[in-house]
Parts: sequence; structure tokens; C-alpha cells
Amino acid sequence: MSKVIDFQTDPSKYRHWRIEYDGPVANLFMDVDEDGGLFDGYQLKLNSYDLGVDIELADVVQRMRFEHPEVKVVVLRSAKEKVFCAGANIRMLGGAAHSHKVNFCKFTNETRNTFEAAEADSGQKYIAAVKGACAGGGYELALACNHIMLTDDSSSSVALPEVPLLAVLPGTGGLTRVTDKRKVRRDLADVFCSTEEGVKGKRAVTWKLVDEAIANSKFDETVEARAREFAASSAKVDVASGISLGPLRRVIEPDGSLRYSLVEVLVDRDARRATLTIGGPETDAPDDMVAFEAQGDQSYMLRLARELDDAILHLRLNEAELGLLVFRSQGDPIKMAAHEAVLMADPDHWLANEVLKYWKRVLKRIDVTSRSMVALVEHGSCFVGVLAEILFSVDRSYMMEDEFEGDNRPIATVTLTAANFGLFPMGNDLSRLQNRFYGTPEAVDTAQGHMGEALEAAEVNDLGLVTMILDDIDWDDEIRIFMEERASFSPDAMTGMEANLRFVGPETMETRIFGRLTAWQNWIFNRPNAVGAEGALQRYGTGVRGNYDMERV
Amino acid sequence: MSKVIDFQTDPSKYRHWRIEYDGPVANLFMDVDEDGGLFDGYQLKLNSYDLGVDIELADVVQRMRFEHPEVKVVVLRSAKEKVFCAGANIRMLGGAAHSHKVNFCKFTNETRNTFEAAEADSGQKYIAAVKGACAGGGYELALACNHIMLTDDSSSSVALPEVPLLAVLPGTGGLTRVTDKRKVRRDLADVFCSTEEGVKGKRAVTWKLVDEAIANSKFDETVEARAREFAASSAKVDVASGISLGPLRRVIEPDGSLRYSLVEVLVDRDARRATLTIGGPETDAPDDMVAFEAQGDQSYMLRLARELDDAILHLRLNEAELGLLVFRSQGDPIKMAAHEAVLMADPDHWLANEVLKYWKRVLKRIDVTSRSMVALVEHGSCFVGVLAEILFSVDRSYMMEDEFEGDNRPIATVTLTAANFGLFPMGNDLSRLQNRFYGTPEAVDTAQGHMGEALEAAEVNDLGLVTMILDDIDWDDEIRIFMEERASFSPDAMTGMEANLRFVGPETMETRIFGRLTAWQNWIFNRPNAVGAEGALQRYGTGVRGNYDMERV
Repeated sequence: MSKVIDFQTDPSKYRHWRIEYDGPVANLFMDVDEDGGLFDGYQLKLNSYDLGVDIELADVVQRMRFEHPEVKVVVLRSAKEKVFCAGANIRMLGGAAHSHKVNFCKFTNETRNTFEAAEADSGQKYIAAVKGACAGGGYELALACNHIMLTDDSSSSVALPEVPLLAVLPGTGGLTRVTDKRKVRRDLADVFCSTEEGVKGKRAVTWKLVDEAIANSKFDETVEARAREFAASSAKVDVASGISLGPLRRVIEPDGSLRYSLVEVLVDRDARRATLTIGGPETDAPDDMVAFEAQGDQSYMLRLARELDDAILHLRLNEAELGLLVFRSQGDPIKMAAHEAVLMADPDHWLANEVLKYWKRVLKRIDVTSRSMVALVEHGSCFVGVLAEILFSVDRSYMMEDEFEGDNRPIATVTLTAANFGLFPMGNDLSRLQNRFYGTPEAVDTAQGHMGEALEAAEVNDLGLVTMILDDIDWDDEIRIFMEERASFSPDAMTGMEANLRFVGPETMETRIFGRLTAWQNWIFNRPNAVGAEGALQRYGTGVRGNYDMERV
Repeated sequence: MSKVIDFQTDPSKYRHWRIEYDGPVANLFMDVDEDGGLFDGYQLKLNSYDLGVDIELADVVQRMRFEHPEVKVVVLRSAKEKVFCAGANIRMLGGAAHSHKVNFCKFTNETRNTFEAAEADSGQKYIAAVKGACAGGGYELALACNHIMLTDDSSSSVALPEVPLLAVLPGTGGLTRVTDKRKVRRDLADVFCSTEEGVKGKRAVTWKLVDEAIANSKFDETVEARAREFAASSAKVDVASGISLGPLRRVIEPDGSLRYSLVEVLVDRDARRATLTIGGPETDAPDDMVAFEAQGDQSYMLRLARELDDAILHLRLNEAELGLLVFRSQGDPIKMAAHEAVLMADPDHWLANEVLKYWKRVLKRIDVTSRSMVALVEHGSCFVGVLAEILFSVDRSYMMEDEFEGDNRPIATVTLTAANFGLFPMGNDLSRLQNRFYGTPEAVDTAQGHMGEALEAAEVNDLGLVTMILDDIDWDDEIRIFMEERASFSPDAMTGMEANLRFVGPETMETRIFGRLTAWQNWIFNRPNAVGAEGALQRYGTGVRGNYDMERV
């Protein structure tokens, strides 16, 4: 699996999904092309999916919000006769490297979360209309929807057969959503999750696995009625038309470096690091959201979010050995603040809301990226508002103090804005500053008192906003030593440490999925009972069960 | 590592700990015997520990509460010259099987939690008086104390060197306590946890890693003063003397079965299960807590808790292939209720409090036991109050309905008491019924309305208190099929599933340690970078660093 995985797609390229727009309702059909696998060696039978299918789905959800803001309800359906979705493709999983499996699961989890975010942040509600077998990742797709309708017949069921059949966990939030979202009683969840054939009809309703079970003869009309009903009662504001999301400007250099219009990713393979430099705005901010909307996908704030998102995903899946991500910025802090301010001044404008909520998702994507991350606040940088959030997302941050010899860029500053105080909650529902100052909320208040000020190093240090400030004498050596050291540690230990330190205190369904469920799944993905030659994933489809070492740990 | 690990010990057998009692203050000295390892092949240098050292420590903490209720402050010290504690012994870890490592970490975590529980539940406060190097599990011992005093000199430091040195995580709650309990800012925690040599003196205070740094010359007197001060301001009730905890009555049969005075553990190796049968009280309940105290460790409620606790620990560490634990009870429900009621009627009595809080710990131990667990509510059983909690702790429960042919035992009932409504919170701070009915709190209220009633199967089923009720026709087959099926699944997948389903919704520091941190550690404990031939654990002490696969996952 060494080809470059591209996260950019658009409807003209979809092989697995089809959408029918019908006013406020969109019908989204899953129709996986068996021969359209991202890699060779497996067929995507029975609407099973691989990363390629999910990349298209993520694109669907994203465009639904920006290009189709008129949609209030999305009905997820299968275009296959007898199956809704069989879940992640097992042969793909059986053949994939551990790192691919883990990152595949992370991306699918992020995509499922966007279903829920669409309703919470934008009023776009996802309904699953399940006809036929809905198993494993297929049921997890349905679980990510906020209303599940099941055909009540002899062949339609929901199931999480991973544990009995494959010796792995449902890896896309299934175990957590069953108890935490659907509120299935935990012993019934235990029965459900260890029953290969799943649960049908009325029992699925009684156990709360689905919201409705409807006779086949009335299914389609009931689904349509329900979609209309939800659309009619939706609080989503009416928007006549969206903006289109054109292709990103991106060049991949022979050495693996990436150049976007605003983001540059320099790859240093020997040092095992990628340096992401974010460019500030070239032009003045638009006057208001009307002007912003006219700029559409070329507006600075949206373009930057899309490029950064793509860069992170590219690095995650295509550059596994670059263990350290270094975030820099260069630009005019005042212009940066002005661009952000246009969105903040009119947050109820549909597009302002969408752009801000997209930034929320991009920042969360950074939070759960399994690489060591550091931010360098250098002279000439523009860590303002949403970009300052990056300082509070990464593992450490270093800032230049005082003038550096021969460096005539403007002195390094950090500027907090209202964006840093609750606009971009992390997965644990804390702002990044609340997370940073867990246990000392007064430190958040103090920082808030300095909103809008271009804070220089000494003040930033006093406020606790960076890990360390360094002057001209120490900067080069300290940064070099840190980077060399970090690149020398065991990547697994770093992953585990960072996964624990980045999220403090409270947990939510989302952090439980990424922190508790994912960690157990990673462990299982390393155990011979699942992935060994006689493990269940390898033996799947042979008619022979996995041969298990029965020792409990 | 095939010898039987015995969790029973007493001060006459201690090899690693020494206690000096001084009125309300106890000085607990860690003085690990290098040659006293539980297994061959390693020496416990520098106050490093293995499971044997921790078994003694757990015994110390337990006896402090029952035998020394006069103690209000426990000062944890080292009896070695230059080292406080070097943490878990690395050679032991390097040589141990995965299952031993994981269960060793679980037990040490439970023991650390008892430090905190001693203050929260009983007013016994633990202070760490750190002189010399305090690294890894050594610092985690200190972190479990509620006040950390560090000698401010050139050789005393606190450190978590696991990530840089050993390519594993601090496995006894370190990462979680640093951020969640000590409230160390997460980027400083990142620096701390990747710095082998740790942090000394005033910086350790500034970063909140310790509470005080005191010059060597004043250290001992300051520690003594602080201990006296905490004792003087303690809210702990004065108790003149405790009760003694004598040895358990326990016979281990040749086939591995265990017979205690009240608990019988039948081992069936072919079926890979252990059946734990809890016997009800043989005699009437004592009249009051005065009579109870006179019975001391022979009182039914305390004896049962101790035997059950020992049985669980024995099975965890010594019987890894028994993947299914079946809980039964046989006894008089009315007598059972009466014995429990003596404690509940006088909960402020020091011993009533200690016994109830001990049950809280035993039930939590069951919650995090990594085996499939089922309860069978048979005719003649006595699942009342605290024993009914077991039904809500295990993964599933089955109950006999109506009379069974040829069975003249009293009809099966379940009786809820006040003990089921908040007295025994789980690690997530929910009662087991709140956890069971997460999202439908009204179901808890309904159940509460039936407190004190001996509920038969149909009522129990209506209230949702068991997974399934079965009559004479179905019982044998259904139970047999369930057990056979469960014993055939991959143990790893079961462990992961159960770890997720048993704890719903909210998380606490405790569940974050067992759920998030432990899962990441288990994963790392399976990765070649840690445990492979060239991994850091194997290479420790050779002067050669681990050779890492640098791929990030």
C-alpha cells in the first residue's frame, strides 16, 4: 500500500455514492463499486467499504454543508438489493499494515462524527433507512445517524458481529454509541455484540438499537414521510444556495513536500519531520459576509482551513515515518485578525457558521493526530485567534524572545481573540485554553483580559500560553535538541503519551471513542488472535474459525 | 512464572516494608529486599518493586484501616540512602509474559487507588516524603499520595522516564494523575514525561509536580511537622483500637478449586470457567455494631468480602485461561439482609464504614476484572443488597423462573436494599443501577420503589434487573450454550468489548486510568519497540538503546 492516497475528490469522481436532491431532503445512496477498491487484492462486495469509499463519504458530508445548505435532512440508503452495508472490508483489513488499519479507523471515526456535527452545528439531520443486512461498520454508519429506521422483515437486521466473527472490536464507535448515544442497557449490548446474526424488527426497537421498525410494504413511504416531517420541524435557517468547493491548489514535490496556496509542508526525511508553514492573508479582509460569500472557496479563512485539513490527512496516511509535525506561521497578524473578525462579526450568517464550524473540525483533527506536534512562534508570525488555537493543540510550543541578529521580521507576538474562549471546543467540550489550564480557570480569565493585544514573549510566558520562550542565543540549539530527541523516541510510546496528555479531565462520547475504544482496538489489532496467521481476520472467509490463544490478560 | 501467587500476607511475613507507629502518624518505610523477588531472574535493586512488593503494600494499606484506625496520617518514606523508589523492576517486566505485565499493572493501580480512597473514605491521609531519586513507578507511588514533599538538593528529583528510557508509558496512573490530579499544564507534562532525568527542587513545585521542596537540613523536621499538622486538622473520628485481620481459611484443591469458609470456587479447565458460589450467613446477624465489632474478622460481612477479594485476585493472576467467571449464591435472603442491615443502621460507626467501603473496593475490583462474568440467580440464592450489586457488575445475568422439577430450594428472588442506590459507586461515580440504566434514570427510581421486596423472576424482568429469565424447560440448554459460546470467543476481543461496555457515559480519573491509559499501555506492551528482541525493555541495562521501527500509526 505505497501509492499516494488523495483525500481530494468531487462528485464527478465518485464511484460509490449517489445523491438525489429533493428540496430540503437529500437521498444519499451507498452503491459501492466492487471493483473500486483503493488498493488491489480485494473486492468491495456487499457495500463493504475501504478508505476510498470513506473519503468520498467525507466529501459528501462536507459539500452538503457548503454546497447544499438548503438540505435539512439527509437520508442514508443502500442502492443494493439485499444489503444496507456490510461494514469495513475484511480482506482489506486482513491485508493492511497496522498503521493503515489504525489511521483508516481514525478517519472513518472522524467522518462518522461529521454526521452528528452536521445536525448539532448546522441543523442537517442524518437518517439511516435500513433495508437488508446492516452489519459491523454498516451499523456504525447507521449509529452515527440521529434516527434509524429498520425494515421489519426476515432479512433486515442490525448487527455488530466483529467480536464473535472477527475477534476485533467494532472500530468505528459502535460499542460507545450503543451505550452512550442509543442508551442500550449494557447487558443487552453485551448480548447484541456477541450475536453474529444480529437483532431484527421489534426487538431491535425494544432494545433501542433502532428507532423504528416498519413493515417492508410501508417502509419507503414512511421514510419519506419522516424525512419531510423532520425537514418541516427543522430549526435550520433557509439558505437558497451554497458556494462551490473547487479543487485545491496543491503541488506535491518529488521529495514529498507539499505546496498549497497558503500552506507549505516541507518534508525532511532524515530528520523525520514535516514543517507546516501557514501563510497569512495576502489581501485585506472582505468588508462583510456578503463580500466573503462572493469570494466563496477563495476566501482566505476557508481556503486555509481546507488546505490545512488536506495537509494533515495527507501526512497521516502517506507519511507514517514523519513523526514530528512542526507548525509555523508567517504573515501580518493585523490582517489575520481582520479576516477572522469578518466571521465573528456575523456568526449567524450561514457561511460564517459553516466556516467557523469547519475550523472546529480541522482543529479537532489536529488534536487526535498521532504525531508529535510542536509550534514555533517566530518573528514575522501571525498566531492570532484561530491560528493561536494551534499553539494550544500541539504538544509543545516555543516562542522567540527579543530581537534576533540579522532578523528584521516583525517581533514575534501572539494575539488572543474571542475565538480562543469557547468558539472551538475540543472533543472533551473544553476550550483549548480550559484544557490547558485545567484546574486553574483563573488563568483562562487572566488571558481573556488580554484579548486583542499583540502579546510579546515575556507577556506570553507570564500568561502561560507557550511552553518556553528562547532568545537569539538559545533558540537554534534548544529547538534542534528538542527535535532530534523527539525523533529518536519510540513512536508507540509517544503516541500513547500524547493520547493521554492532550485530553485532560472530562470525557465525552467523542473522546471515549478516540481514547478508550480506539486504544483497545489498537491493542487487539496487534494480537495474534486477530491478526496472526491463524487469527480471525486472516481466516475470515475460509470457513475455518480463528485458532485462539485462550489466555486472558 | 507458574508458581501460585498468594495475595495473603501479614506483617510477620513482610520483606519489603516496615512501619513505625507514632500515635496518629504512621511512618511507612519502603525497604525492598533485593533478593526478595517473587520470581527468579532479577534483583529488586534501588527500591524497585515487583508484584510481591505490591502485595505487601496492599496489605499495609488494608490493615492500616482495620487494625490501626487511630492513624490519621501515613508518611511514605524510603529506608534506602539515595533513592526513594526506582519504580517497577525493569528486568521483571522484560521477562514477564504480557498477561502478567497487564495484571501486575492492574493490581498496582488498584493499590495506588487505595491510598486516595483511604483519605476520601476514612480520613487517612498519605504523604510522600521524597529523598533521593523518585522515578517512574516511584513517582507514581508519590502521586497516589495526597501531599508530596521533595528534598531540595542535587540528588533528589521526581521523574517519569518511561517514555524516553523504556519506550512504554508510566503504567500506574502517572500520565493521568499528572494532568488530572496535580493539574500540571499539559505541555509541561509533555516536557516532564520526556525528560529522563526528571525535575528537581523549586521547578518541581512551580510545575506542580510536588507540593513542597525543602532543604535537606530541614527536611525531616518539616515532614514531621506537616504530618502532625495534618493529623491535628484531620476530620477522622478518634478510634482507640482496631480489629485484627487473621489469616483466611482457604484450601486449594489439586484441581485448582478453592474452598474458603463462605466462598467456593469450582474450576472446570475443559470448559475454561470458574464458578464462584457465595454462601449466605450461617448464623443470625449480630444485634448491632458493638456485637459486630466483637466478631471482628469473623463477622459474616467482612469475612465474605475478604474471601471474595482473595478469590478474584487469585483467579486473575493464577488462572489466566479461565475466561469465564460464574457467580452464584446460595443462602437465606432474609438473613443476608439482616447482616447487611447492621452495617447500614450505623454507617458512622468506624467499622461499619470500613466494611462498607471495603465492599466498595471489592465490587470495583470485580468491575475491572478482565474475564467474562455472568451471574446465575438460581433457586435458593441470596442476591440481596450488596450481593445484588454483583448482578449489576457482571456482563450478563440469568434468573430461574417458576419452579424447577425436582428442585425444592426456595424460589429464586432478588432483593434490592438501600445499598443498591448510591452506597457503592463504580469508578465512574455512578451507582451500578445508574450505570445500568444510563439514559433512563426513571428506571432507577422505579426499582427503588421496590426496595426490600423479595422480587421473583417476572418482576425482576419487568424492572430490567437481569438480562434474561428462563424456566425449567430452557434453563440448562440456554446456560450451556451461552457458556460454550463465550468460552470459544477470542479472549482479547472479549476484554476490549467488556472494558468498553461495562462503563458507560461519564469518566473519572479512575476510569481514565483503567480505560484510556491502560489500554494504550496494553497496546504498547505488545509492540516490538517495547518488548521485541531489540526493544527498549529487553535492552534496558545493556547500554544500548532500543532499535525502533519509526513508523507512526
